[in-house]
Amino acid sequence: MDVKYINPFLKSVANVLETMASIKPNPGKPYARQDRKTWGVVTGLIGMAGEQINGNMILSFDKASILTIVSNMLGEKFVEIDDQVVDATGELTNMISGGAKADFSELGINMDMAIPVVLVGEGMELKQLSRTPIIVIPFETPAGKFVVETNLNKKA
Amino acid sequence: MDVKYINPFLKSVANVLETMASIKPNPGKPYARQDRKTWGVVTGLIGMAGEQINGNMILSFDKASILTIVSNMLGEKFVEIDDQVVDATGELTNMISGGAKADFSELGINMDMAIPVVLVGEGMELKQLSRTPIIVIPFETPAGKFVVETNLNKKA
Repeated sequence: MDVKYINPFLKSVANVLETMASIKPNPGKPYARQDRKTWGVVTGLIGMAGEQINGNMILSFDKASILTIVSNMLGEKFVEIDDQVVDATGELTNMISGGAKADFSELGINMDMAIPVVLVGEGMELKQLSRTPIIVIPFETPAGKFVVETNLNKKA
Repeated sequence: MDVKYINPFLKSVANVLETMASIKPNPGKPYARQDRKTWGVVTGLIGMAGEQINGNMILSFDKASILTIVSNMLGEKFVEIDDQVVDATGELTNMISGGAKADFSELGINMDMAIPVVLVGEGMELKQLSRTPIIVIPFETPAGKFVVETNLNKKA
């Protein structure tokens, strides 16, 4: 996948986490997903679809990172993946894909977003019918790790 | 959810299964999803997104129904949920949402589709951040059962 399709996600993750949770995540080196398991303990997924291009964005968090992010977002201490944490994961998925959408639009690529879906649990088997590789961007925070996965397919 | 948002899915399920697998599924009475578990052993999910409306469509099959459908589609006997069955579940998700999209377009509602995602395994915890109820349409076939779940949200 072209790097121009990765930057909008990198930028949006940084913006959303800094604004909503006062957390500055450090991105690592992107790699192509080889297996088909969800990465973390809670995973947000959203479809992105337009006339020229379509795909999905996935956010998957380890327990420490999501609990700290949501505690910061909501100003209350969370210690378990409860309903509020699940909902907040969905909201983060919405906000981050929404930020990326705005940047894609500046590149002349228009997409709309579906409704976020949140999967709860580790190592779920999930396969995307993507014609392009799925790019994983790992992030570190002082409180834990998460990944952003994205694939965008140009329509035939 | 308005019945006019359900009919395109009903019609498309019948068309696709009859054309691709020579199977005529009988729809049961739709109901609103109360829990947040995946219904069957293999589940296809696709985002649908447009300027006026967005949501997801989910297809979830019991083992007997998907094995018979895929065996009929591919002209070869399948006895396990292997890679080809997973891919075929994604293709069915694509084709059924594509048929519904065409019907929505006739109602003046334009959407594009994301890339299908297939979840393998029973009873996975999956929550949609939908503002409208998620409607489940149960189907029976001579070989087993499956459900189609759909939610479409008008944008604010």
